[in-house]
Amino acid sequence: MKQTHLFTKTRKEAPKGEESKNAQLLIRAGYIHKEMAGVYTMLPLGLRVLKNIEQIIREEMNKVGGQEMNLTALQDKKLWKASGRWDDSVVDNWFKTKLKNDTELGLGFTHEEPIANAMVSFVNSYKDLPFYAYQIQTKFRNESRAKAGLMRGREFVMKDLYSFSKNEEEHNIFYEAMKESYMRVFGRLGIGENTYLTASNGKPFSKYSYEFQTVSSAGEDVIVIDKSKNIAINKDDFNESIISDLHLKGFEVGSEEKSVEVGDIYSLGTKYSEALGLVYKDEKGKELPVYMGSYGMSPTRLMGTIVEVLSDEGGIVWPESVAPFKYHLVLLNADKEEVKEYADSIYNSLQEKNIEVLYDDRDKPAGEKFADSDLIGIPKRIVISQKTLDQSEDERKLEVKDRKTGEVEMLLEGEL
Amino acid sequence: MKQTHLFTKTRKEAPKGEESKNAQLLIRAGYIHKEMAGVYTMLPLGLRVLKNIEQIIREEMNKVGGQEMNLTALQDKKLWKASGRWDDSVVDNWFKTKLKNDTELGLGFTHEEPIANAMVSFVNSYKDLPFYAYQIQTKFRNESRAKAGLMRGREFVMKDLYSFSKNEEEHNIFYEAMKESYMRVFGRLGIGENTYLTASNGKPFSKYSYEFQTVSSAGEDVIVIDKSKNIAINKDDFNESIISDLHLKGFEVGSEEKSVEVGDIYSLGTKYSEALGLVYKDEKGKELPVYMGSYGMSPTRLMGTIVEVLSDEGGIVWPESVAPFKYHLVLLNADKEEVKEYADSIYNSLQEKNIEVLYDDRDKPAGEKFADSDLIGIPKRIVISQKTLDQSEDERKLEVKDRKTGEVEMLLEGEL
Repeated sequence: MKQTHLFTKTRKEAPKGEESKNAQLLIRAGYIHKEMAGVYTMLPLGLRVLKNIEQIIREEMNKVGGQEMNLTALQDKKLWKASGRWDDSVVDNWFKTKLKNDTELGLGFTHEEPIANAMVSFVNSYKDLPFYAYQIQTKFRNESRAKAGLMRGREFVMKDLYSFSKNEEEHNIFYEAMKESYMRVFGRLGIGENTYLTASNGKPFSKYSYEFQTVSSAGEDVIVIDKSKNIAINKDDFNESIISDLHLKGFEVGSEEKSVEVGDIYSLGTKYSEALGLVYKDEKGKELPVYMGSYGMSPTRLMGTIVEVLSDEGGIVWPESVAPFKYHLVLLNADKEEVKEYADSIYNSLQEKNIEVLYDDRDKPAGEKFADSDLIGIPKRIVISQKTLDQSEDERKLEVKDRKTGEVEMLLEGEL
Repeated sequence: MKQTHLFTKTRKEAPKGEESKNAQLLIRAGYIHKEMAGVYTMLPLGLRVLKNIEQIIREEMNKVGGQEMNLTALQDKKLWKASGRWDDSVVDNWFKTKLKNDTELGLGFTHEEPIANAMVSFVNSYKDLPFYAYQIQTKFRNESRAKAGLMRGREFVMKDLYSFSKNEEEHNIFYEAMKESYMRVFGRLGIGENTYLTASNGKPFSKYSYEFQTVSSAGEDVIVIDKSKNIAINKDDFNESIISDLHLKGFEVGSEEKSVEVGDIYSLGTKYSEALGLVYKDEKGKELPVYMGSYGMSPTRLMGTIVEVLSDEGGIVWPESVAPFKYHLVLLNADKEEVKEYADSIYNSLQEKNIEVLYDDRDKPAGEKFADSDLIGIPKRIVISQKTLDQSEDERKLEVKDRKTGEVEMLLEGEL
C-alpha cells in the first residue's frame, strides 16, 4: 500500500487525556481513533494488526478442535435470570437497553448462558460429547474507569471458547491442552517469554483457576514468579493453600512483577448447563448435565499489551507475526525522477511476490520519514535514495534496517 | 470437515413462530440459531457462508480503492446531536444505553457521524481527497417488527462504505463506479439476474437516489421493471418527475414485482461534513466542506435473500461462490469397512488438495442422508456406496450430483 493512498496520517502529539502508552502510540501512528474512553475505532493499519492477531488465535483454536461460530451482542434477559447473572447487583458492568415494547435486553459481556442454551438443540447423547465452540466477537463491559487504552475496553474484541464434556475427567484433559494452546498463541504473538501461566482464584466460577499474565509496567495485577518452573501465582491469591491445592509444591518464590492478564481459562462445572437445561443421556440412558469450561483471550487487549511490552522510545516495535506489513519501503529524494522510478519498481516487484509492503512515497524530509517509520514500527525498513542509485546497477544493494535491533544489512533485491 | 465432528444437527421442523422461509431453512439445516426475533447466532456452517459473502464484498470494495477499517457500536451522543439525528422523534430505531455515570450512549444503526468526525484528524487539504473508507461491522436497529429472518435484523452485519470528495463532480464519478461495483457483487453472489438498479426517493438524505432490488416473493418493496434497459423504479416513487429528473426518458413500464432491497447508495452532499466540521482547503486556501457519499449493503440480509431466491422444495441451493463447502461427500453403507475406508481416502485426498468438503460419515439411512444433504444445499454431492466399490478399481467412477439441476455425472477421482 502506498502511503499517499492511505487516508491516515501520523501525529506528533497524543490527544489530551489519553494516559496509556499503548493508546498514545497507536493513535499517534494512525492505528486507532478514540471514540470515547475505552472505545476505539480500528483504522486501516490497526485493523490489519488486529486481523493478524485474530488469525493466529483462530489457527490455534482450530488445532485443538475448536469450531468457529458467532453469537450475538443482544442478550435475552430470560437466560441470564436462569443463571442468576441478570441483576446489576450480581454483575456490575452490564450495558442494558430496551426493545420498543420495553422488553429489557443486555449487551453480552460474556456468553456462557446463550451458548449453553443454543447447545440444548444439539446435545442429546454421550455420543455428541465432547466438543468445543468458539467465537471472535465484540463484547461490551460498562467499566466505570477506562483509562488503559486497548487494555481495558468498554467495547472490545474477545475470543471466547467453550468446552462441552461428559464429566470432570474428560474436561480436565482438554483444560490441560488449552494451557499449552494459550502459551503457543502468546509465543507466536511475540510475548511468550514475558508471559506466565498463573494460578489464581477462580472467581466468579470456581475456587481456583489459571490465568495468563504478561509482565508489564502497565499491568493492573502483580504476580509472584517461579522462573525455574516458568509459573506464577497472582499475588492477591498467594498463600499456602493455593500451593497445596493446585499441587504446586516446591514453588520457589522469585521476583514480584506488575503484569497484564492476557487470558483466563475456567472450569465451569455444571453451573450453566444445569441452569439452562443442557443435559445428555449416558450409556445407560441416565440424564446428566454437561460439564463446561470457558477460555477467554482478547485480541484487542493483546494488541495493546504487545505495544506496551515491545515498544521503545522511537515508537511501536511489532513482531513480524502481527505487523501490518513486513517491509516499510521508504523513498528519499522523491523529487528525483530516477530514484522515484527505481523505488516504484521495487514496490511493484514486492507486490507481485505477495510480500506485504507499506511504501512511503510521500515527498517529505528524510528525518520526518524516519521518525514516522519508527513510530509505525514495521519490522524491516528498506531505504531507497540517490545513494542507492549511485551504485553500479549490477551490484546495487538496498539498505535494510531492523526496527527492533537497529541493525543494518545491505541486500541485493533478490535477497529480500 | 466430518459431519460426526460438526456439533450442529439438522432438524425436521422449524421452531414455532418463525415465519420466514430463509430463517426456517437456515435453522433447520443448522446454519443459524435464533436468540430472539431479528437476532440470530451464526453457527459454524452459517459463519462459513457469511465469511464467503463478506470476502466477495471486500474484494470488490478494495477494487474501487476502498480502505477497510472498523468503527464502534457504542456512539457518542454529541456527534449525533450535531447532525440532528440523536432524538428518537427523528430516528425511530435507536437502541440506547448508559454509562455508569448516566451518560447516554447509542448503538450505531449507521456511521455517517462518527466517520465524518474521525476524518477531521486526517483531512486538511484538497490533496487529501478523494478517498474511500469502509467497514464490515455489526449494526443495531430497534425494529418494532422483525419477522423476516435474516432479511430484517435488529442486530445484523453491514458493509458501509463512505466516500469523501472535493465536490459534487468528483463525487459523481465515484457514485457511478459504485453502481457497477454493486452489480458485480450481486453477480458474484448468484443473484445478479434477479437484481435491478432501482431509482427511488433518496430519503433521508436527498431527493433521489439509487437502490438495488432483488426480485423475491418475500420482498417488502414493489418495483416497476424496464427489462430492455435492465433498470427499475420503486413503485412508491414512480411518477413522471422521477423519470425526467433522473434522465430516465424512454423508461418502458414493464412488470411489477415484489422485491428485497439489497443495497443503497446515497449522495450525502455536505450535510454531515458541515455538521461535524469536516473541511479542506482548496488550491487557493479557501476552506470548503467535504462532499460525502454512503453506500450500504448487508451481508446477513444478502445471505437471507440468497436462500429466499434460490432454494427449492428440498432445501437451500447455494451458489458455489458462497457455499460453506464445494462438495458434500456422502457415505452410504457406513457399516461396511471397505466402503468406509474408500470414502475416507477420497475425503483425505480432497483435503490435501485444499478442496472444501463436508464429509457425511454418519451411520444413518441413505434417505435421511440425502434429505439432509438437499436441505444443507452444498453445490455438488459425491455418493460413495457398495456400488462404487463394486466397479473394477481401474475404472472406478464416482456419482456426482448437482444440487441445482439434479444432473448426475460419473467422474473418475482425478476429474473432481
